[in-house]
Amino acid sequence: MGPALGSSSVARVVSFVKGHGTENDFVLLPDPDGTLYPDLDAVTVQRLTDRYTGLGADGVIRVVRSRDLAAGRDVAADAEWFMDYRNADGSVAEMCGNGVRVIARYLWDTGLATERDLPIGTRGGVRLVREQTDGSITAEMGRAEQVRQQAAIRVTVGGRTWPAEAVVVPNPHAVVFVDALDDVGRLLEQPQVKPDEAFPAGTNVEFVVGRADRHIALRVWERGVGETRSCGTGVCAAAWVAMRRDGAAPGTSYTVDVPGGRLVVTEREDGVLLLTGPAVLGLSGRITVPM
Amino acid sequence: MGPALGSSSVARVVSFVKGHGTENDFVLLPDPDGTLYPDLDAVTVQRLTDRYTGLGADGVIRVVRSRDLAAGRDVAADAEWFMDYRNADGSVAEMCGNGVRVIARYLWDTGLATERDLPIGTRGGVRLVREQTDGSITAEMGRAEQVRQQAAIRVTVGGRTWPAEAVVVPNPHAVVFVDALDDVGRLLEQPQVKPDEAFPAGTNVEFVVGRADRHIALRVWERGVGETRSCGTGVCAAAWVAMRRDGAAPGTSYTVDVPGGRLVVTEREDGVLLLTGPAVLGLSGRITVPM
Repeated sequence: MGPALGSSSVARVVSFVKGHGTENDFVLLPDPDGTLYPDLDAVTVQRLTDRYTGLGADGVIRVVRSRDLAAGRDVAADAEWFMDYRNADGSVAEMCGNGVRVIARYLWDTGLATERDLPIGTRGGVRLVREQTDGSITAEMGRAEQVRQQAAIRVTVGGRTWPAEAVVVPNPHAVVFVDALDDVGRLLEQPQVKPDEAFPAGTNVEFVVGRADRHIALRVWERGVGETRSCGTGVCAAAWVAMRRDGAAPGTSYTVDVPGGRLVVTEREDGVLLLTGPAVLGLSGRITVPM
Repeated sequence: MGPALGSSSVARVVSFVKGHGTENDFVLLPDPDGTLYPDLDAVTVQRLTDRYTGLGADGVIRVVRSRDLAAGRDVAADAEWFMDYRNADGSVAEMCGNGVRVIARYLWDTGLATERDLPIGTRGGVRLVREQTDGSITAEMGRAEQVRQQAAIRVTVGGRTWPAEAVVVPNPHAVVFVDALDDVGRLLEQPQVKPDEAFPAGTNVEFVVGRADRHIALRVWERGVGETRSCGTGVCAAAWVAMRRDGAAPGTSYTVDVPGGRLVVTEREDGVLLLTGPAVLGLSGRITVPM
């Protein structure tokens, strides 16, 4: 390699692994002793996730033991490993349905975990993750719940308006059935969701079409991000609404196509949703991050 | 870091720098002695450029001395440094207008080059690159030329058809003026360009709108890639057609907005097009690539 780039006087070398589930992608930062990144700041996360100057990712997953951070000791004492998740902008997220499947893949592949039913701590609680015989990975996502509204919810994009249903999984989603996924155009601007009081903290929006029996496809607008390739809770919210609409029996599985691939959502008898799909690890390395 | 991922028995550690110009992004592989990557194969390039499992990039730039590769000795003996460029799929490209500006930024920032007018060897010949006082970087792109056709060229997307002009810079472009950039929808499929014989090897397509006097905006479909954030030769082709249409005098500059930012194209008195815009280096590091 040529001479080092000398733009910053202080830099830190960060070991990473890239990984994704249906192209919802992550920079994993292994920190098995909890000593490397107790202070992971938003600027560092932004530098790592930048698509053009960094490694490019939807989020950063610090792979840490629950005992080594306060959130882990508080809500996940029963799970050895914890998914310390940051969105690309550096903000903390409670849970990520694709991320929890990717961290499980990493823990199994490296031998850091061996249990077939692997509990992973998240800020949203402990989630059980299991590898299927075909190599896909299933994560428990919790229950979905319809939000009762005073007034009908409407979503508007590019001058067209559709009715929507409000669901929490437990983050908020507005699920819209459309005739075709192209009906919402390039989706460069945030969909308008009314009435404002339905989602005081904003919402994710799923645009859904039927593909076949128990098979839907969707595009998703993620709150604070824009259109993404996949969103685990959005896929669960859309499948759950479709199951209700179709009168599906508990235990039914729905196939959900997203721009980044295919997932399957199963509603267990107890109402817990299971998200199944691929989780892939990519290249690993060490990167120099200016501080 | 946790235990190494052991999926491959042979691996190679590759030092890299990320960089981009208007979000047309690259993995730079410094190889100043020509010894590291004489054998850069398509699979390795694909692994590095993969957006979800690799570093993510539109292309790979091996930073090498002209004397150290046959193409450099053949066409760029006068330039010390050579841009050995691969598209994301691993195929070799002659020239990249954003890439040549980014490699110049790297050579200046590392002290490997100090000339204000820096000749860079490419498979398309030697290009002079210069940094402007505002930090933007200008590259000589060569001349554009209209391709005379027997029949009018037509571009069709989503059932709508527009007339187009055929330009080589020297790679082929079909330049289409549209009323609005949204008129071509999500642009997920290759535009249909007729007649077939106009572009026997396929073509890039630019969809262009006027923004103001000497100011256009465009979206670009890159042959073999899809829609991209920016394309240096496409920007030059579109500006050149707009200059002809407007009857602009030689020496005129046009501002061109692309999804990834803003570039300026100037037609020099001798007809050579100059492409000016930002060139940004990002994080650097070492990555382990299975072989």
